[in-house]
Amino acid sequence: MAVGERSAQRLRPVAGVRLGTVAVGIRKPDRPDLVLFELAEGTHCSALLTRNRFRAAPVLVTEQHLAASGQVRYWLVNTGCANAGTGAQGVRAALSCARRVAEQGHCAVSEVLVFSTGVIGEPLPVDRIVEAVPQAFAELAGDAWEAAACGIMTTDTRPKGTSRVLNIAGQPVTLTGIAKGAGMIRPDMATMLAFLATDAVLEPDWAAQALRAAVDASFHRITVDGDTSTNDACVLAATGRSGVRVDAAEDGGRCFVAALTEVCQSLARAIVCDGEGATRLVSVDVIEAADAAEAARVAFTIAESPLVKTAVFAGDPNWGRILAAVGRAGVADMDVDRVRIYLDDLCVAENAARSQHYQESQAVARMSAEEVRIRVALGRGDAATRVWTCDLSYDYIKINAEYRS
Amino acid sequence: MAVGERSAQRLRPVAGVRLGTVAVGIRKPDRPDLVLFELAEGTHCSALLTRNRFRAAPVLVTEQHLAASGQVRYWLVNTGCANAGTGAQGVRAALSCARRVAEQGHCAVSEVLVFSTGVIGEPLPVDRIVEAVPQAFAELAGDAWEAAACGIMTTDTRPKGTSRVLNIAGQPVTLTGIAKGAGMIRPDMATMLAFLATDAVLEPDWAAQALRAAVDASFHRITVDGDTSTNDACVLAATGRSGVRVDAAEDGGRCFVAALTEVCQSLARAIVCDGEGATRLVSVDVIEAADAAEAARVAFTIAESPLVKTAVFAGDPNWGRILAAVGRAGVADMDVDRVRIYLDDLCVAENAARSQHYQESQAVARMSAEEVRIRVALGRGDAATRVWTCDLSYDYIKINAEYRS
Repeated sequence: MAVGERSAQRLRPVAGVRLGTVAVGIRKPDRPDLVLFELAEGTHCSALLTRNRFRAAPVLVTEQHLAASGQVRYWLVNTGCANAGTGAQGVRAALSCARRVAEQGHCAVSEVLVFSTGVIGEPLPVDRIVEAVPQAFAELAGDAWEAAACGIMTTDTRPKGTSRVLNIAGQPVTLTGIAKGAGMIRPDMATMLAFLATDAVLEPDWAAQALRAAVDASFHRITVDGDTSTNDACVLAATGRSGVRVDAAEDGGRCFVAALTEVCQSLARAIVCDGEGATRLVSVDVIEAADAAEAARVAFTIAESPLVKTAVFAGDPNWGRILAAVGRAGVADMDVDRVRIYLDDLCVAENAARSQHYQESQAVARMSAEEVRIRVALGRGDAATRVWTCDLSYDYIKINAEYRS
Repeated sequence: MAVGERSAQRLRPVAGVRLGTVAVGIRKPDRPDLVLFELAEGTHCSALLTRNRFRAAPVLVTEQHLAASGQVRYWLVNTGCANAGTGAQGVRAALSCARRVAEQGHCAVSEVLVFSTGVIGEPLPVDRIVEAVPQAFAELAGDAWEAAACGIMTTDTRPKGTSRVLNIAGQPVTLTGIAKGAGMIRPDMATMLAFLATDAVLEPDWAAQALRAAVDASFHRITVDGDTSTNDACVLAATGRSGVRVDAAEDGGRCFVAALTEVCQSLARAIVCDGEGATRLVSVDVIEAADAAEAARVAFTIAESPLVKTAVFAGDPNWGRILAAVGRAGVADMDVDRVRIYLDDLCVAENAARSQHYQESQAVARMSAEEVRIRVALGRGDAATRVWTCDLSYDYIKINAEYRS
């Protein structure tokens, strides 16, 4: 299941980026599961990697390569096996894959970043991947973003991608991103896996800041099941091939950050809409919080409550469960009489009780919409945040109980 | 669904306690839903109430009455309506019920404690309850604990109760407790609803300490869905009618605390075994933690992970999900190479990878047992804790999606 229309947006090529997707049979036969990105010489990469303490082997290798290397020439992504919980052997496996790409691509091993997603704890089938690298090179093409978006899917039911063309001081700059993810989604630093590329010329430190800001407002604001993956990664490549320099201090800089945030939010929402078993998208707005951390804590407590999520699945405006979640969110000095709970525009609770004007039929209409909007005003200050999640349905259980079978 | 055998243990009467259970039709017809406890004069009560900031009206009233009154003569418990999220009107409703009991029982209103469980946000049907009070008095009997255990059930599929007879300095003391709860279970202070009574003479301050210690090792160590109820309450009545004085400083004191902890753990496990949709009981032991808080954080992160819980439902030893949960539990300086993960006695992961001796068939056997024992050694210190939970099945969704329908 998934919420909303499958996006039909065409993904725009980014000058300096070519993609090749092949089916290696890592977990299932005849399914694209290996994607190679080729990045033009001089491309700079910014990355945010998982903060799960058990970081997958490819995350460790990618982090080292980013630290060692001024430029990045290739990203190699496989699905079907996360190469996580695989210890020193897993690191050797990830390096073998990177080495094969470097040989074929005539670059340093440290110029290759590797990414994996899939089952944790099983060994990576290195031989099959290494063998398929030449074929991935043969497939490289600039207009192959759609195939790549399909090639990185696991329990996703649809590919996720979006493009923006910006006008920076009268010159066009392209920004395209793809992502995957449907379960184990509570990104902490970034979500597994988002790949972004632009042909703009970006100053590296500023690009890292811009990516952090965009991710904070997007991937860091979604949750499907509260489970942070060992393989989370979000990377941005700036090929510079448009020749357009984005100046952080000028309008172009603001414009670029806004577009980058939009692209990340679009992908983040797409992940939640395709959350495992999702039948409704849920946005949780917390306003009037004392500070941003408090707003986030309350919003995530609601968004991760299995009781709230099953009520949304049922289209049942059981706002008492929202109230109970707000109450246990760890805001010790909360004045419950000042809290108001809304479904979209409809106030359902105030003064620690059901709103005087509450009508069940109005509440049902809002709770059974395709996008359910929960809004909580805490009456404590000016901080606010928005978090996205999906409902909790039978299919979440089905997908995750049968995942390895 | 529920795990294990329905306990057939007979619940022993406690001198000084009589119980009356009636069917008022609060939510469903012909189902016992109102329970009155009569406590002998001079009975002292200790209580732990929810720390959810949205505390239900009966919790507020009970707290006031405990503070105002030296003794407690009655507990009135209803199911079908939590009288939570009902504001000032809810408090008036709870007081009306207490007042009616006080009239009939010839005591002060502050000597009546009230407890409610059920749907949040709907008004309490005061008239029907008030009308039924005389009938509840007419039913009062000392050997009616089993009926009371049934009378406090909501989504529970079985009553939960246990008794112990202690020998304190050669004299018998009885301790009996009942509890309810199957969903919205992540007690913070205590779980909705546990009622304990003893005929021992207990020094009030010490009784409160003993209850806190027992609850910390039992109700505070279980979770079904991570959701803390607005109505959690655990109360202990000491009627003193055995005439046996429990001296905190002597063997009798230690013996009493041990028995109280056992009773609470038995009830807590019964709640988890009857967790909404439960097909397996899960115990999570975290050992070698730096401190108790860290042990609890890691244990609850595992116990509340939907991915771990669906793997348990499937009997799938997908230990990578346990590893991912440990990794995101907020232990910043964890050395992942020192962490070992066990299913019962079987080491499945060490050195951040699958154990060398891992055999899938052995792991499957442990993961498909009726009680699944997850054990994680952090390699950081001497602190340990144990948490109980259940798996996450289709029936959890069914029960909670259809709860109000």
